[in-house]
Amino acid sequence: MTPAFPFSAIVGQEEMKRAMILTAIDPRLGGVLVFGDRGTGKSTAVRALAALLPPITAVRGCPVNAASVEECPDWAGLTEFETEERPTPVIDLPLGVTEDRVTGALDIERALTQGEKAFQPGLLAQANRGYLYIDEVNLLEDHIVDLLLDVAQSGENVVEREGLSIRHPARFVLVGSGNPEEGELRPQLLDRFGLSVEVRSPDDIEERVAVIERRDAFETDPDRFLKKWGREDRSIRDRIGQARATLGAIKRPKSVLRDCARLCVALGADGLRGELTLLRAGRALAAYEGDTTLSRDHLRSVAAMALSHRLRRDPLDEAGSQARVARVVEDVLT
Amino acid sequence: MTPAFPFSAIVGQEEMKRAMILTAIDPRLGGVLVFGDRGTGKSTAVRALAALLPPITAVRGCPVNAASVEECPDWAGLTEFETEERPTPVIDLPLGVTEDRVTGALDIERALTQGEKAFQPGLLAQANRGYLYIDEVNLLEDHIVDLLLDVAQSGENVVEREGLSIRHPARFVLVGSGNPEEGELRPQLLDRFGLSVEVRSPDDIEERVAVIERRDAFETDPDRFLKKWGREDRSIRDRIGQARATLGAIKRPKSVLRDCARLCVALGADGLRGELTLLRAGRALAAYEGDTTLSRDHLRSVAAMALSHRLRRDPLDEAGSQARVARVVEDVLT
Amino acid sequence: MTPAFPFSAIVGQEEMKRAMILTAIDPRLGGVLVFGDRGTGKSTAVRALAALLPPITAVRGCPVNAASVEECPDWAGLTEFETEERPTPVIDLPLGVTEDRVTGALDIERALTQGEKAFQPGLLAQANRGYLYIDEVNLLEDHIVDLLLDVAQSGENVVEREGLSIRHPARFVLVGSGNPEEGELRPQLLDRFGLSVEVRSPDDIEERVAVIERRDAFETDPDRFLKKWGREDRSIRDRIGQARATLGAIKRPKSVLRDCARLCVALGADGLRGELTLLRAGRALAAYEGDTTLSRDHLRSVAAMALSHRLRRDPLDEAGSQARVARVVEDVLT
Amino acid sequence: MTPAFPFSAIVGQEEMKRAMILTAIDPRLGGVLVFGDRGTGKSTAVRALAALLPPITAVRGCPVNAASVEECPDWAGLTEFETEERPTPVIDLPLGVTEDRVTGALDIERALTQGEKAFQPGLLAQANRGYLYIDEVNLLEDHIVDLLLDVAQSGENVVEREGLSIRHPARFVLVGSGNPEEGELRPQLLDRFGLSVEVRSPDDIEERVAVIERRDAFETDPDRFLKKWGREDRSIRDRIGQARATLGAIKRPKSVLRDCARLCVALGADGLRGELTLLRAGRALAAYEGDTTLSRDHLRSVAAMALSHRLRRDPLDEAGSQARVARVVEDVLT
Amino acid sequence: MTPAFPFSAIVGQEEMKRAMILTAIDPRLGGVLVFGDRGTGKSTAVRALAALLPPITAVRGCPVNAASVEECPDWAGLTEFETEERPTPVIDLPLGVTEDRVTGALDIERALTQGEKAFQPGLLAQANRGYLYIDEVNLLEDHIVDLLLDVAQSGENVVEREGLSIRHPARFVLVGSGNPEEGELRPQLLDRFGLSVEVRSPDDIEERVAVIERRDAFETDPDRFLKKWGREDRSIRDRIGQARATLGAIKRPKSVLRDCARLCVALGADGLRGELTLLRAGRALAAYEGDTTLSRDHLRSVAAMALSHRLRRDPLDEAGSQARVARVVEDVLT
Amino acid sequence: MTPAFPFSAIVGQEEMKRAMILTAIDPRLGGVLVFGDRGTGKSTAVRALAALLPPITAVRGCPVNAASVEECPDWAGLTEFETEERPTPVIDLPLGVTEDRVTGALDIERALTQGEKAFQPGLLAQANRGYLYIDEVNLLEDHIVDLLLDVAQSGENVVEREGLSIRHPARFVLVGSGNPEEGELRPQLLDRFGLSVEVRSPDDIEERVAVIERRDAFETDPDRFLKKWGREDRSIRDRIGQARATLGAIKRPKSVLRDCARLCVALGADGLRGELTLLRAGRALAAYEGDTTLSRDHLRSVAAMALSHRLRRDPLDEAGSQARVARVVEDVLT
Repeated sequence: MTPAFPFSAIVGQEEMKRAMILTAIDPRLGGVLVFGDRGTGKSTAVRALAALLPPITAVRGCPVNAASVEECPDWAGLTEFETEERPTPVIDLPLGVTEDRVTGALDIERALTQGEKAFQPGLLAQANRGYLYIDEVNLLEDHIVDLLLDVAQSGENVVEREGLSIRHPARFVLVGSGNPEEGELRPQLLDRFGLSVEVRSPDDIEERVAVIERRDAFETDPDRFLKKWGREDRSIRDRIGQARATLGAIKRPKSVLRDCARLCVALGADGLRGELTLLRAGRALAAYEGDTTLSRDHLRSVAAMALSHRLRRDPLDEAGSQARVARVVEDVLT
Repeated sequence: MTPAFPFSAIVGQEEMKRAMILTAIDPRLGGVLVFGDRGTGKSTAVRALAALLPPITAVRGCPVNAASVEECPDWAGLTEFETEERPTPVIDLPLGVTEDRVTGALDIERALTQGEKAFQPGLLAQANRGYLYIDEVNLLEDHIVDLLLDVAQSGENVVEREGLSIRHPARFVLVGSGNPEEGELRPQLLDRFGLSVEVRSPDDIEERVAVIERRDAFETDPDRFLKKWGREDRSIRDRIGQARATLGAIKRPKSVLRDCARLCVALGADGLRGELTLLRAGRALAAYEGDTTLSRDHLRSVAAMALSHRLRRDPLDEAGSQARVARVVEDVLT
Repeated sequence: MTPAFPFSAIVGQEEMKRAMILTAIDPRLGGVLVFGDRGTGKSTAVRALAALLPPITAVRGCPVNAASVEECPDWAGLTEFETEERPTPVIDLPLGVTEDRVTGALDIERALTQGEKAFQPGLLAQANRGYLYIDEVNLLEDHIVDLLLDVAQSGENVVEREGLSIRHPARFVLVGSGNPEEGELRPQLLDRFGLSVEVRSPDDIEERVAVIERRDAFETDPDRFLKKWGREDRSIRDRIGQARATLGAIKRPKSVLRDCARLCVALGADGLRGELTLLRAGRALAAYEGDTTLSRDHLRSVAAMALSHRLRRDPLDEAGSQARVARVVEDVLT
Repeated sequence: MTPAFPFSAIVGQEEMKRAMILTAIDPRLGGVLVFGDRGTGKSTAVRALAALLPPITAVRGCPVNAASVEECPDWAGLTEFETEERPTPVIDLPLGVTEDRVTGALDIERALTQGEKAFQPGLLAQANRGYLYIDEVNLLEDHIVDLLLDVAQSGENVVEREGLSIRHPARFVLVGSGNPEEGELRPQLLDRFGLSVEVRSPDDIEERVAVIERRDAFETDPDRFLKKWGREDRSIRDRIGQARATLGAIKRPKSVLRDCARLCVALGADGLRGELTLLRAGRALAAYEGDTTLSRDHLRSVAAMALSHRLRRDPLDEAGSQARVARVVEDVLT
Repeated sequence: MTPAFPFSAIVGQEEMKRAMILTAIDPRLGGVLVFGDRGTGKSTAVRALAALLPPITAVRGCPVNAASVEECPDWAGLTEFETEERPTPVIDLPLGVTEDRVTGALDIERALTQGEKAFQPGLLAQANRGYLYIDEVNLLEDHIVDLLLDVAQSGENVVEREGLSIRHPARFVLVGSGNPEEGELRPQLLDRFGLSVEVRSPDDIEERVAVIERRDAFETDPDRFLKKWGREDRSIRDRIGQARATLGAIKRPKSVLRDCARLCVALGADGLRGELTLLRAGRALAAYEGDTTLSRDHLRSVAAMALSHRLRRDPLDEAGSQARVARVVEDVLT
Repeated sequence: MTPAFPFSAIVGQEEMKRAMILTAIDPRLGGVLVFGDRGTGKSTAVRALAALLPPITAVRGCPVNAASVEECPDWAGLTEFETEERPTPVIDLPLGVTEDRVTGALDIERALTQGEKAFQPGLLAQANRGYLYIDEVNLLEDHIVDLLLDVAQSGENVVEREGLSIRHPARFVLVGSGNPEEGELRPQLLDRFGLSVEVRSPDDIEERVAVIERRDAFETDPDRFLKKWGREDRSIRDRIGQARATLGAIKRPKSVLRDCARLCVALGADGLRGELTLLRAGRALAAYEGDTTLSRDHLRSVAAMALSHRLRRDPLDEAGSQARVARVVEDVLT
């Protein structure tokens, strides 16, 4: 109901903003996890990103925002098909959401009034082709987090309950914010997120004053504030659109693939999700920066956000994981 | 059913009374948390404040007290629109309240009798544009507290359950009372409250006698007592009304913004909610005192209530948080 | 079904009997908590008190025993109003009682047969203007105890559940019995009770023989026993009635208010409920003894029952709380 | 379905058999708790007692076995009243019994078919004027044990649930068997039982052989075995009947009451239930033995079963509670 | 669906096979508990025994396999009675079985369609006069194990739930398999089983090869395998039948009863179930071996299976319980 | 919805691929458990195997994929029977699946609309004659894992709930993936799986690059990638088909059976499931490799996957279980 704070008016927090842009360019990057103290504007940034995204074309009336007739599930019961533009869906997972609203469930009303077992789609259907945002992923019940990650990875929502046996596409970017003070996330969960960034309150007085000023200005006269920052937001949106168009054509030299593998081996990151994410994040950055070939520099820029949440804890190394990634990048990529 | 004890007849407790007045002037301050031993009159003060507040203008029959037709949600099913005056809603959260009564839920009666899925609004709807009071926030279940804070911050109640997908405005001032003896509140929750104050039983014999006398007089002959204190209550209400009117015009010199930031950095308060609250509380005080410019003095007066619940615990500093704030204010603002 | 053992036939236990009489004179005293070993006749005393109380005048058919048409709630659906005499209600909270029977709940029968959402009042409605007795308050679930204390203090039962939004007066004296061996009560709960007394099995052989004799006589031939003790019971009931009538006219010299405050400060009792209870209990005693002015002597007689459950635990002071109160009364009031 | 093993054919276990006989003479003795290792015939004895008891006269069709029209509750809906003989009810509490079957509950069948809220009585109704047997009281859920003891003591079943508000007489002897190895009973529960006895497997080879022989004979040819022991059982039943008739006329000299009190004080038994039980158990024994006056000898015989479960644990006294009672009886009663 | 592996084709495991045969001869022996590592063929043996048992004669259509009209319960609603042959029921308790399917419960279908409260019998009804098999008794919920043992001992299923009050015969042999590695069984449960045996994987290579060969042969060509071993199985079945016929006529000299008692006293087995089981197991063995008198030798053969699970744990004696029984048998019976 | 990654395009992981092929040849091998770090492609492999399997012939409309009329259960209600080809079912157990969807349950829709108690088959029915895949078996609730293993072993699904008493064939290969970091599996569960393999991320840079390249190529242009690898996949499928045909004719020399037994004894594997699995896995391998006689070499190749999860933990032997099996194979089989 309140309009979103403009993305470009966020003071500092460059790493977080970049991660969000990359994921907007290549949604298969697998979600962003934003760590940070309370009050650092995590939610503000996510809601700001939503306003930046270009609209999607979808079958009118399709509950899963399908791009084509084939993709729209039978249970939707559509008989006519034409397409329309819709804003990129950005679905908020409210606190206290129940599993049946997430996955969808038996439509009780139709069951009672018409005696038939119909499916009522849930938030996962609404989020298809868009974003699903969990504020304070720590507060969500474990089984719902597991469920979301599972669907996020397979791109499909499978519902087997109350006698229903339904499946529908559910491809979305999962964005979670978390506060490490409220308990750590399980390594398994961390690994399922593509990128992670940390945000901190600025220590610089002038930067803090800028934050308060902009926030206060926004709340005092939102219309004027939005007009002022609209141009910059539009320019980011355009660059995202162009990057999406050129993403498929970016070249990936074998030497850079080797860099990916060497970085991950040197860091001891488990599994192979690290390399793949590094490759994709680097490519998305290349596209955003208008380059045509993936380079070592691109890897350098995204290594921290793609890898720092995949390190095994090393009790002898007291440096934070961001610093460890930086050090290894230095060693391996020079 | 019993009339409220007059606000102005409360003996002492100036800090608590001030916090309540400021929040009445600028509801976006984000709620008040009143800490204190049992029997110190926390509940009495909240109920007293309710009687002070000016009425609001709302669409007749609108379940969320909407000020205009546009704001009144479709599901209310209103077809005619005229406005009426209502007392500022002050909603009590009774012990043992269930989540469905807080957020609203499926209207079972209509579902059964008319076979349709209608929304029955809950306490969050009733509290829109008013106050929501939780006596002993410690005794409330965690998931309901999380829910309330979430809604209080977003200003919107989102219901995704039992096949319903409803949203409506829910802007209210959350007032909680708590007893630190019954277990500490999580830092995350503390931070979400705008202001906090502590109340204590007076040590002074004459002050205690005054409390007993007034309390006994009120219970023995309430009408006479209310008449006696009514004039003073009306004068506070008038000042609140005037302060609301001038609040938007208060000037905020950049130097004072810097003071806000320096105070918070010096105190090590996490995040940026501290600065924003300090700014808003100071501005509300300026308005209440009839000043036109926010000054360092205003910050000084509200620093304790805006910041003392946001400090990180410092095991080497045995002073209470109120004292720590006072000391830093002394250092930074001179 | 069995008649109650006569109040005046209880051997010894003077403190407990006095506390019950005072609360019968001024129900706003806030309930009595009776501590004691098993088998000391706690329940017997409460049931005996019930038989002593004068009847009340109530609207015929009113589910909350309202004294007047205005007080009887709309949902009772009464259309004609005349009054009748009823015994003072003394409601027993049976073990295993469910929350819906305490607060009242949706009337399922009317919902099913007539399709309307009516309120079926619970024990709190029945207890209005009377007594609510909890045998072994330790065995009751915490959330029900919280609920009872909350209602006992506000004098109003607020029901927000199953789509109902009901309120009705629920002013009653809460009497609880407890056995400290089965786990301590939380300080917060202790403080909410007005008076507390301890009962013990007598050590004196002749006193014990008297207890067995009377008990055995009562069980062998109840009618004869009741006739024998009826006169003494009636005399107590008359004195209670007179004390109620003169209670409002008892004078309270300022010096005695100061005594109240000084006692509480010296004892370190938290909050101000101690002073108010001391004042009211003293005044009720003055009325019972036919005095017209509250005096220091009255305070002395009720100090232990009004204050001993409000002391902070002092690990260095091994005396029981009764003894600590006695010592401080000695120091302060001479 | 299998006939009960004859009471008189039980080998040894005299203390247990005596306790059961006394409780059959005076049901107000308050139940028997039988402690013992597994396999010592606890259940056998209880089921054997059932076969010994004389029939009762009850209103035909009355669900609570009422002796007279007045006692039969209205909700039973009887319109004609004549009496009949019934065996003394001995109700078994099956494992896994639900609370609604114990107390009675809403009659769902009538609610569904006739739309009316009727009460379906439970096991407590069936047990009125008889026995309620709990095998392995340790395995029963606490809240059901509490409920049973509560009803056993008040003699009335109060049901406040599902919108029902029902009460009916429920006077029964509670017999429980327990195995101290499976966890101790709470002192509060112990105290509510009138008598307690311990049973042990015999160490004597011939006694064990006798047990096996009788048991094997009973199982091989039950009819012949029952005929053989029937006469002895009938003689016990007759003595119980005579003792019931003379119980009211037994004299209780004051000196014996003093003995009761002195014994309990010397043993440090809490409360006064010990004395009363001692008095009643002694009187029942006097009646069983055909005496007309209660004597010190009677007390001696029943002291262990009336008191040994009421002692405070004394960590310095390693003797069992039976031995402690015996020692004190020796000291006090000579 | 797969045919059972033939009982006689089981390699080794003589103790287990003997225990099963004895229980087939005298079902009142009270069940068998088979302990053993995983993969030792516990389940195979139980399923094999089932195929060995002679058919029973039962009332056609009777849900509890009653042998006669009198035994078939009224609620079965049979109006015509003729008998038929049925295989001895061997009921498997599937994992995840609910209590209502075990005990039987309200027949929901008839309740809904015909508005009457009928009983739908459960697995206990089906198992009457047969076997009830629990694979991995450790994995079953405690309250269901308690229930089964309770019914197994009383021979009757008592259902007091959902307004039903039903009883029917439920005499069956309980066979449980357990793995001591998954947590010990409570002593109380152990004692309720009549016999216990331990099984182990053979250490001998040729024996292991025999097991694999037979198992592989059975799976490769079941028909041929069954034909090959059928004759031996039939011979065992015939011997069981003859032993049942002569069981009642076996003589039990008093000296052997004394042996039973002396063995149990020497072993310190609690209670008297040990003696009775020893007597019955010895008698069944005598019958199986064609002897007419119970002898010391028979006791020797069954002592381990009848007693080893009833010993108190002796922390100073590290020998297994089987060895302890053997040693005491040696001492006492020579 | 996304096509599966081709089986033959998986880089390395030979052991895992072999285990899956063997289980496809002989489904009675009892399932495969794949252990490994996150991100090693466990799920990819399982989904790839599915695409390799030949179709099955089943009765049209039969909910359990029955091969013949006799095998199709009555409750399916089929009246006409013809057969059809279906892909080998590969059923995914979604996270959060409820027990009723696994086992099947009462068909609520038919119960409500037609008033009859029909069975709605669950995932176990669908999986008959195919595969059931559990991703992250660690995250599944214990009681569902127990259930699955129980059914997997017996080949039959027995449903005793909600008044239903249903059984149907449920023969399937259970494939589970697990991450030892998320907590160990109980030994009992391990033993129930036939084969186990471990997967690791490769350390070799070129191998890692190959993985990224293929994965990236597949995601960039799936059709081209599938065409490229299709031939190799078809060749594996053909070899599986031939191996199935010759499996029954493979000879098993007694010496090789002895090798099986000696290996298991030397390794101290509990029970006899080890030998049987070794025998079957070796035979399946012989068939896959076109041999006609089972040889020692075949045992050598499958010993690790058949036995390494059945070893008792040996605290003195720090080698992993794979290494221990290899060492013993070396000792015993030479």
